[in-house]
Amino acid sequence: YLYPNVLHQLYWGYRESFLCIHLNFNSFVTRTNTCGELRSAHVGQEVTLYGWIQYQRQGLFLVLRDFQGLTQIIIPQDEAHSHVKKLLSNAPVESVVRVTGTVSLRPPGQENPKMPTGDIEVKVETAEILNSCKKLPFEIKDFIKKTEALRMQYRYLDLRSFQLQYNLRLRSQIVMRMREYLCNLHGFVDVETPTLFKRTPGGAKEFLVPSREAGKFYSLPQSPQQFKQLLMVGGLDRYFQVARCYRDEGSRPDRQPEFTQIDIEMSFVDQAGIQRLIEGLLQYSWPEERGSITTPFPSMTYEESLADYGTDKPDTRFGMKIVDISDFLRRSDIRFVQNALSYPRGTVKAICIPQGMEIVEITCRPDGSLKSLLTKFLGEKQQSELIQALNMQVDDVVLLAAGEHKQCSALGSLRLESADLLEAAGLVLRDPTVFHFLWVVDFPLFLPNEENPTELESAHHPFTAPHPSDTSLLYSDPTKVRSQHYDLVLNGNEVGGGSIRIHSAEQQRFVLEKVLKEDSEVLSHLLEALEFGAPPHGGIALGLDRLISLIVDAPSIRDVIAFPKSFKGRDLMGNAPDYVTPEELEPYHIQVSWPLAEKEAKNP
Amino acid sequence: YLYPNVLHQLYWGYRESFLCIHLNFNSFVTRTNTCGELRSAHVGQEVTLYGWIQYQRQGLFLVLRDFQGLTQIIIPQDEAHSHVKKLLSNAPVESVVRVTGTVSLRPPGQENPKMPTGDIEVKVETAEILNSCKKLPFEIKDFIKKTEALRMQYRYLDLRSFQLQYNLRLRSQIVMRMREYLCNLHGFVDVETPTLFKRTPGGAKEFLVPSREAGKFYSLPQSPQQFKQLLMVGGLDRYFQVARCYRDEGSRPDRQPEFTQIDIEMSFVDQAGIQRLIEGLLQYSWPEERGSITTPFPSMTYEESLADYGTDKPDTRFGMKIVDISDFLRRSDIRFVQNALSYPRGTVKAICIPQGMEIVEITCRPDGSLKSLLTKFLGEKQQSELIQALNMQVDDVVLLAAGEHKQCSALGSLRLESADLLEAAGLVLRDPTVFHFLWVVDFPLFLPNEENPTELESAHHPFTAPHPSDTSLLYSDPTKVRSQHYDLVLNGNEVGGGSIRIHSAEQQRFVLEKVLKEDSEVLSHLLEALEFGAPPHGGIALGLDRLISLIVDAPSIRDVIAFPKSFKGRDLMGNAPDYVTPEELEPYHIQVSWPLAEKEAKNP
Repeated sequence: YLYPNVLHQLYWGYRESFLCIHLNFNSFVTRTNTCGELRSAHVGQEVTLYGWIQYQRQGLFLVLRDFQGLTQIIIPQDEAHSHVKKLLSNAPVESVVRVTGTVSLRPPGQENPKMPTGDIEVKVETAEILNSCKKLPFEIKDFIKKTEALRMQYRYLDLRSFQLQYNLRLRSQIVMRMREYLCNLHGFVDVETPTLFKRTPGGAKEFLVPSREAGKFYSLPQSPQQFKQLLMVGGLDRYFQVARCYRDEGSRPDRQPEFTQIDIEMSFVDQAGIQRLIEGLLQYSWPEERGSITTPFPSMTYEESLADYGTDKPDTRFGMKIVDISDFLRRSDIRFVQNALSYPRGTVKAICIPQGMEIVEITCRPDGSLKSLLTKFLGEKQQSELIQALNMQVDDVVLLAAGEHKQCSALGSLRLESADLLEAAGLVLRDPTVFHFLWVVDFPLFLPNEENPTELESAHHPFTAPHPSDTSLLYSDPTKVRSQHYDLVLNGNEVGGGSIRIHSAEQQRFVLEKVLKEDSEVLSHLLEALEFGAPPHGGIALGLDRLISLIVDAPSIRDVIAFPKSFKGRDLMGNAPDYVTPEELEPYHIQVSWPLAEKEAKNP
Repeated sequence: YLYPNVLHQLYWGYRESFLCIHLNFNSFVTRTNTCGELRSAHVGQEVTLYGWIQYQRQGLFLVLRDFQGLTQIIIPQDEAHSHVKKLLSNAPVESVVRVTGTVSLRPPGQENPKMPTGDIEVKVETAEILNSCKKLPFEIKDFIKKTEALRMQYRYLDLRSFQLQYNLRLRSQIVMRMREYLCNLHGFVDVETPTLFKRTPGGAKEFLVPSREAGKFYSLPQSPQQFKQLLMVGGLDRYFQVARCYRDEGSRPDRQPEFTQIDIEMSFVDQAGIQRLIEGLLQYSWPEERGSITTPFPSMTYEESLADYGTDKPDTRFGMKIVDISDFLRRSDIRFVQNALSYPRGTVKAICIPQGMEIVEITCRPDGSLKSLLTKFLGEKQQSELIQALNMQVDDVVLLAAGEHKQCSALGSLRLESADLLEAAGLVLRDPTVFHFLWVVDFPLFLPNEENPTELESAHHPFTAPHPSDTSLLYSDPTKVRSQHYDLVLNGNEVGGGSIRIHSAEQQRFVLEKVLKEDSEVLSHLLEALEFGAPPHGGIALGLDRLISLIVDAPSIRDVIAFPKSFKGRDLMGNAPDYVTPEELEPYHIQVSWPLAEKEAKNP
């Protein structure tokens, strides 16, 4: 539980950059310094510190901790200070104390170069126990090893860990920098939009909030989409909001029922404009300690992305791209290959796993020949052509997939699985300190409905504008229309998405009614707004929780949220959600429909 | 609907101060300038503007508007530009257009000194109608005269008005300055806390959110109170959040079901520390155009405030203080006075309304005598003593209240009513450009329950710490305990409130269980947290909507919220709340209990 030195320095570095604008952690309080602040330059000063007892040894010294660091405190041993000694020796670990004393150099040889305050110690004059800590249910230093349920139940203890302090503080600073960029440099207006709204069409994942009008419900929206478009119609020109959003997906790992997005919308902008804005935003707010990022970010079409990586959010930190080897195998005798190739969109594709021998046994032999059941069907020339096409090296493994596929999602998953296995075997493929941003563009505007493939649904949402080159296709063959949607991908994670929106009421109505066959009545206010001089506009939303978790290399978004819910949507500390009385439901004109089993249990 | 010049200049002034940090409204888009930017220095430049047609006259010129201002556009009359002329002449008002052209000086004598861009005009070269506006249901310039319901239904049109643009932009800038002060200058951490939590004891005004677990509900909290305290226990040291809060009060004028507060909490701080923090915060973020504010703010005890103003949120911009005149009347023969004075806390109090003759007829006569039914009961000496005590002038009116009262709330209300009447009669008492901040302190910790006066309830909330001088009274006579609660009052409006919190688990449990007789089980997580080394801490919350509405002198908080709800809690634009289908309720295990009348109407 000692602060890892490297992290501490990083954090300190970040803070230093703030000091130039007179950051003062000691304003409005009686402490003179934080526990991370004292250096040899302070020697001789009388100081007042407040903090938690991290460690105490035999009444001789203790280590005091606050959010900023650790300071070694020397307990006086002389008679005149016997009261102070007694107080501090008996105080349990994690008690809160105030101490005053004098900063001294540590005796020669006792400096701790791993501690920012390692050159000094504070000789106590007076001390006060502000709050004594009862016995902890576990040692804090072991906390990280405990179950996550226990950590969430005692979240206020977990928050004292260096890692969570670091994550939350870095998050706050990154968001502040984003605000400076948007608000102070580029004239964006921070507008708060309502979270009590009404159900949007297809908003099956929206929480409901009963109102006092019988049968009427608000709904907690998944994003401020409608409002930000209406703000553009209202002439706000440039809007942003760090917006709380809600999504009721039941139990999903690493999703939260409430989450935060950096929500942005601009008038008179095109796709490139939004992309440059976001690149500038990320560059401006990027924490120094995480290196720098290069702009503009590379861009890839949706089709390329699926073809090369089998996913629309490729992790481009490593290769293993998908290669179409249909042509090499077209004249082979392999039954399942021929079968696959006989379909209209039949292909054979492959990925080559460098050093794949580490994880599977079908390999390229040291003598250059292939070890595979397939070799007997391939001539030597075909084999060597294949080796060349896939750039196979000794000990590489090739995985093949044959079939009528457009998306190669199987190979895409295998690619990631293989990376997992290779890393488990000790190879480094995906350096967490390297950040590969990527724009994925030219998505289809509509996709076939999964349940009923003859019907179309929006690939993203019904407000997305068609690609300018494909507008006429909208009326003739909507399945072929590309959209002006763009996703921002970071190391294989979707961290943002947006689009240029439809600003013509006629086009919006056509999409809703003719293509999507939706009842446009629920969106009548938006359609009407488009008729009253709506400017061309577009925007984007960044998933803040995910973005921050990638920046700090946290295993879960729960590590960058102060009070996250469990994967079942529960607050394990406060025990939410909870039962309420029928009387409390009365004003809302609702009652609980108990599932049969529970009903019987309640009324046996 | 022309921009009022004074407001425009103010707004411009505010913006100018941003320009020094390179504020760029034209980044990422193809416009060269906004419609408020061009000056004589730009003459000769080729410009591209985007905006709304504010006004168009006989195909000769038009006025283009965006968020920044107005620019006069000269429509070309020559044959080569006949297409442009046709386009612009036929475009309906409020259509969105792009124009390119050359900045020219207006012909001598045609400058408009009331317009920031009044020296120039733009001679159009090319133009494009980006979106045509259909006939408006009303003229926008008359909008302000329309019913508020209509304005809210077409909120996106109302947002185009100068006043709403100004309000929302100023709000954004003030909040940004607050963030700079808290985050960059004083080391506060912006932490987002959950809004899906559980019902707090006595949280009758909390919206409920059904969960997928039968019978269990989240609740939308009225403030992040518990979370911010837990963040202090977690060692965050300095927290702030621009927090969305929820309160279901049914229909209340000028209240919103969701509202925003600047939420702050600090460790190791006392009342004076929080007060200095807030004074600094407001001074730092105060818009230049609203003058400056002086700190520290004056302070008044709760008792003084009630005695002098009959309210705990006095408007100190004007006098008319309440004066206790019991002693002057003690020897009079007036029946109801004697009756009132016979009670243990009986008093007679008065306010003197300067120039009250303007509004009522019982006055002080020009000859110095009183015109009142009471004069016959008072001797001359008593009369002149009374005149002196109340500092009565000719034409003043005195209102008396006799009874067993501690709070004088009747006279407090009469004082405000009188001010309303005097202002309606043309006198200025409460200058809206003058800002009187005031701390009200030393509130009682507990008040008698209104329904059952033998029981006590928290004057604010159960986490408020007792006044240090009164701690021992907590255990002997809790009714006498003053609290460490403080309210911030601005011109008679409560704009903030906070307190030093209880950080001892034992004291917190005593308050909950012994004084308030509450079931402390629902707060067990908080009580437990206090046992694990909770630091002394305190905080405050500022009501942002109210504060901004006072700064911009808006009649209602609805004028500083982009999409407010009606006083019945409805969104009149999007029609929320709305009916949902029984299928949509199913996953939440609830059903509607239709009131009998509606049930019958539905199933006749």
